[in-house]
Amino acid sequence: MQKSITISPSIMCADLCNLEQDVKEIEKEGLDTLHIDVIDSSFSPSMPLGLSTIEQLRKVTDMKFDVHIMSNDNEFFIQEMLNIGVDQITFHIETTSHVDRYINMIKKNDTKVGIALNPATPLSVLDYVLPQCDTVLLMLINPGFATDKNEQQVSYSLQKVEDLAALIKSKGLDTQIEVDGRVSLESVSGLVSAGADILVAGSTSLFRKENSLSTNKELMEQAITKGLQEEAKV
Amino acid sequence: MQKSITISPSIMCADLCNLEQDVKEIEKEGLDTLHIDVIDSSFSPSMPLGLSTIEQLRKVTDMKFDVHIMSNDNEFFIQEMLNIGVDQITFHIETTSHVDRYINMIKKNDTKVGIALNPATPLSVLDYVLPQCDTVLLMLINPGFATDKNEQQVSYSLQKVEDLAALIKSKGLDTQIEVDGRVSLESVSGLVSAGADILVAGSTSLFRKENSLSTNKELMEQAITKGLQEEAKV
Amino acid sequence: MQKSITISPSIMCADLCNLEQDVKEIEKEGLDTLHIDVIDSSFSPSMPLGLSTIEQLRKVTDMKFDVHIMSNDNEFFIQEMLNIGVDQITFHIETTSHVDRYINMIKKNDTKVGIALNPATPLSVLDYVLPQCDTVLLMLINPGFATDKNEQQVSYSLQKVEDLAALIKSKGLDTQIEVDGRVSLESVSGLVSAGADILVAGSTSLFRKENSLSTNKELMEQAITKGLQEEAKV
Amino acid sequence: MQKSITISPSIMCADLCNLEQDVKEIEKEGLDTLHIDVIDSSFSPSMPLGLSTIEQLRKVTDMKFDVHIMSNDNEFFIQEMLNIGVDQITFHIETTSHVDRYINMIKKNDTKVGIALNPATPLSVLDYVLPQCDTVLLMLINPGFATDKNEQQVSYSLQKVEDLAALIKSKGLDTQIEVDGRVSLESVSGLVSAGADILVAGSTSLFRKENSLSTNKELMEQAITKGLQEEAKV
Amino acid sequence: MQKSITISPSIMCADLCNLEQDVKEIEKEGLDTLHIDVIDSSFSPSMPLGLSTIEQLRKVTDMKFDVHIMSNDNEFFIQEMLNIGVDQITFHIETTSHVDRYINMIKKNDTKVGIALNPATPLSVLDYVLPQCDTVLLMLINPGFATDKNEQQVSYSLQKVEDLAALIKSKGLDTQIEVDGRVSLESVSGLVSAGADILVAGSTSLFRKENSLSTNKELMEQAITKGLQEEAKV
Amino acid sequence: MQKSITISPSIMCADLCNLEQDVKEIEKEGLDTLHIDVIDSSFSPSMPLGLSTIEQLRKVTDMKFDVHIMSNDNEFFIQEMLNIGVDQITFHIETTSHVDRYINMIKKNDTKVGIALNPATPLSVLDYVLPQCDTVLLMLINPGFATDKNEQQVSYSLQKVEDLAALIKSKGLDTQIEVDGRVSLESVSGLVSAGADILVAGSTSLFRKENSLSTNKELMEQAITKGLQEEAKV
Repeated sequence: MQKSITISPSIMCADLCNLEQDVKEIEKEGLDTLHIDVIDSSFSPSMPLGLSTIEQLRKVTDMKFDVHIMSNDNEFFIQEMLNIGVDQITFHIETTSHVDRYINMIKKNDTKVGIALNPATPLSVLDYVLPQCDTVLLMLINPGFATDKNEQQVSYSLQKVEDLAALIKSKGLDTQIEVDGRVSLESVSGLVSAGADILVAGSTSLFRKENSLSTNKELMEQAITKGLQEEAKV
Repeated sequence: MQKSITISPSIMCADLCNLEQDVKEIEKEGLDTLHIDVIDSSFSPSMPLGLSTIEQLRKVTDMKFDVHIMSNDNEFFIQEMLNIGVDQITFHIETTSHVDRYINMIKKNDTKVGIALNPATPLSVLDYVLPQCDTVLLMLINPGFATDKNEQQVSYSLQKVEDLAALIKSKGLDTQIEVDGRVSLESVSGLVSAGADILVAGSTSLFRKENSLSTNKELMEQAITKGLQEEAKV
Repeated sequence: MQKSITISPSIMCADLCNLEQDVKEIEKEGLDTLHIDVIDSSFSPSMPLGLSTIEQLRKVTDMKFDVHIMSNDNEFFIQEMLNIGVDQITFHIETTSHVDRYINMIKKNDTKVGIALNPATPLSVLDYVLPQCDTVLLMLINPGFATDKNEQQVSYSLQKVEDLAALIKSKGLDTQIEVDGRVSLESVSGLVSAGADILVAGSTSLFRKENSLSTNKELMEQAITKGLQEEAKV
Repeated sequence: MQKSITISPSIMCADLCNLEQDVKEIEKEGLDTLHIDVIDSSFSPSMPLGLSTIEQLRKVTDMKFDVHIMSNDNEFFIQEMLNIGVDQITFHIETTSHVDRYINMIKKNDTKVGIALNPATPLSVLDYVLPQCDTVLLMLINPGFATDKNEQQVSYSLQKVEDLAALIKSKGLDTQIEVDGRVSLESVSGLVSAGADILVAGSTSLFRKENSLSTNKELMEQAITKGLQEEAKV
Repeated sequence: MQKSITISPSIMCADLCNLEQDVKEIEKEGLDTLHIDVIDSSFSPSMPLGLSTIEQLRKVTDMKFDVHIMSNDNEFFIQEMLNIGVDQITFHIETTSHVDRYINMIKKNDTKVGIALNPATPLSVLDYVLPQCDTVLLMLINPGFATDKNEQQVSYSLQKVEDLAALIKSKGLDTQIEVDGRVSLESVSGLVSAGADILVAGSTSLFRKENSLSTNKELMEQAITKGLQEEAKV
Repeated sequence: MQKSITISPSIMCADLCNLEQDVKEIEKEGLDTLHIDVIDSSFSPSMPLGLSTIEQLRKVTDMKFDVHIMSNDNEFFIQEMLNIGVDQITFHIETTSHVDRYINMIKKNDTKVGIALNPATPLSVLDYVLPQCDTVLLMLINPGFATDKNEQQVSYSLQKVEDLAALIKSKGLDTQIEVDGRVSLESVSGLVSAGADILVAGSTSLFRKENSLSTNKELMEQAITKGLQEEAKV
């Protein structure tokens, strides 16, 4: 049976002054997941959108909210997200000593849990918590700099996805691999082939300026199919 | 000559999923100032809207942006606001030892500067900086709790506005007094009469659910006129 | 009618390995209030007793708990004290920008609220919150150093108590003045005469080694009576 | 020669208002070690008992103090414990960049040193410091939540103890493995069999409500013997 | 008897790669005090010179060290300065809640104590500690920006010096007023006339590039004399 | 071809009151690299020399500046060093979650980048960033305690250098290994033989009191040659 790949469009690429309309349009394309970046200005010098915005958005769409918290105060933001009601909460392992505690907080609320790793963070941090996670999110650019056009995907992206896929397989798990950061039309097939399951889609893929959303989505799906075929070959 | 009172509608009361539309509607009512609360989740457990949202909003309206920063990292947020280009930046005096420095940062960029005081903060903190400020913002509820219906305006609101008005007068200054927090249709005239110049308008005045924006605005203006008349009598 | 003075014996002077017994003994002397210092090791390099100890103590005595929080995280400790159920919660004004908020948190739980001031802190910080407080606690030594025998009461103790008494009177309030730090048999009458209402009693008064608790209490009461008489004369 | 297992009863389970009496009772059972949790309210939202309490307790018992510091300010608490005079000081590796420095501070004072790991922390953090440690303490629940009945031992407890035992053996060391968190009568034999040397005993073993201390101790010893036999078989 | 004014040359204006030589030159001019700025990079984004440098300098000159600590960790730097052995330690009142404690720490070591105020800080913070201070240092520019040529002396400099002089006089004290920040040949007489006792001398006075040190010193002394004459007239 | 070893004399051993002269003397010995320790007093309780000193030193010598930042605020110090213009910037991996970001910041400015590891830090932290580094600096004593004569090199120094050398080789990289802390005349050959490329030279080698700089340099070079010969044998 073919593995299914999720496209998770980044809300940071939507028109933030007309969010409802933009989200509806994404929904109309048949996409059911929305990637929501919560940055607190302290973890990274960035604060794309607010909690009240997310709270109001929750009421106007049925899309799944795939929330990526980038904060030094995970407890506050996890609790806020649980209050709003989202589908998956991913937090950074670098910003807490209490990884297991936050995993429990999220799971007790029947919400999926993800752990995010900065580019340089080694996989050894996952030694004991990998089986507790639904998802591991690998940052492929430095978090908080998505809007800086000069910021490039790190050179070791594919290697890290492959290493993680191998680790998951070696433990007999089915943890999802989410990739975030310059996941472009050009890099999608490689990432999928390496083992990525969830693709955070931004300005270099789904929101590419030169095409319509619909065309971009089609191009992404072609790249995904290509990636899955390559993976199957291995 | 009659003093002019500014109504500064709080963006926190707008529909955050349809900001452009809501702001246009406010603009259509002849209001030219928008009060934008920037809370960083650390100063208060709240983070209403994001920096990217403000940046995009700047491009779709010509309203004046009256920004109220509630953060422990004033330097970062002042710089972000200067980059976006706003009309007035107000920061809290409780969160910095470098008050004069931030006043200079803002003024050098030809932007109006305000200093905000929490309810309990004494006016003596203004001893040397009052002449450097365009505006002093008095919080009349505890910052970050505007959406908590149980949070009431502090009992010493009028007293504090009067004290500040007297202080400004005694120094021969024309500093504007901005009041923020449960500035309701009922309290407007009292606050104006006490000396308030700028009224942050939220869910208890301009955005009162039972009336249209237009009716609320009219009611506010009546209350302002009443306040000015009472003030004139004193 | 004669003003009544409260003796609030400091739990830090009790035998911490036999707390129940010691507290019962204090209770037997007819004293109904226990002064409990909560220091978090960060505000001052000291952490006299734990939260679990207070929680268990609450169940074995009916004495009033007069809690003095010395922490940089007031919100946490106020909430813990509200959970345990105490009679008065006093926090330091130097450690928060949200004075009014914490006053509200405490009052909503039908608990008395006090504000504590370090020796050097000016009374102007009370300008707007004095009417909201049941008590103002004046530290007469530097907090966290009660056990350092070399630490002396500040030279301006009496002056500060007198100033605060005058301020309270000028505003027509009946706020209680609590004094804490080397409140000795020798200094009691002066402090009472200056306006103190609650006396935190430690190793230089109620727990003076050379006398029994009972004798010390009698000596304290004599000193209080003397102080009240002197005050009456003024 | 049979390996000897230490039972380290947690002081958090004693009657904190009658500590001397409770500790004497434990001592009478022939136990010579007391596990003392020092939590600073910042590392975890908990602060079970105070430094002054530990200091006074040191004077009324000859039991060995096995101190477990859970703090973000290790330097302060290590120094306090050295001043009081304890037998082993264990600190968390997640809360400092200066692991080797603190190990030295403790060793120079002829005190045993332990390093504690939160549940999710990988063993790779021990790569270079394992030989410098007398003990490695594995937290089997999230620290600071021992009194929360819903908090369960992590599912990977046995695995982690086994991994650590293997690591110690592979390096030819004799580092002690201490386990802390829901070490129950039911789980003791498994943990011992996996390699645990020191068992922090709390409400699910030594202080089990339905039995006397004496009975519980006997049951623990039976479970330990069973565990040692199983280990011998492997 | 004429009041004596101290010139305190700022070490930040010396050649930091040839400190010994430069300091000897200053000493040769008959100046006996050296103003040493200790900035920790956190209080202000600046760290002019190191602790080891000060320690070594202490051994090669007999000048009095007038140390101005600009740090958020006063305890550490005060202790370091006491270890090195200096003549006066001034710390910022904005960065600590424990003002009285640090005053005591310094005084117990027979060292003069000063309290520094940022430009915007009101004099009311001195209400109870003024009598404990040898010196109050008024920052006339924002601390940490001395090398920024665009940074100007605040407009309320003279006013603040006069207010402080009046306050000291009203309390019958002889506290010294130290002024720091763009104390130029042009502003010296005004500041002295307003009540300044110690002048921190930098690039706009003693170290003015166009003259020799000797000439600048002479010009400063002329300006001081002029200021003292003006003061005498008042 | 024989590998070339760099001696990087620590500026902390120079006469800080006569820096220019001392640095010229080092330069005269044919050494072209200067090791500059930047400690911010927060990472370690030490602040050897200031930023202004480094800035001025940059103008009086052409030596390469090999900067070792020991700070919790890497971004500030990296930026300051880039402004001054240095040859290599090394920062501690323990003090940031944004390793890859800082590597990029440095590289974009055509400056070499190093990552420093405290003694206890495992090499697994380098898993993904090793190929991005020019240098890995291994601290062999605890950072900030170089002047404490009792502080000894950690016992696992050679092992760690060997492990790192093996790791670099296994990845086919040519990353330089820099060793810092009690790199003495006695330990040099062992460290070089184990794989060290850059030797931070201090009071136990180049600045050994009993010999001239010239003699010490010669002795170091002999030890280096010996080390290289031993390495070649392996």
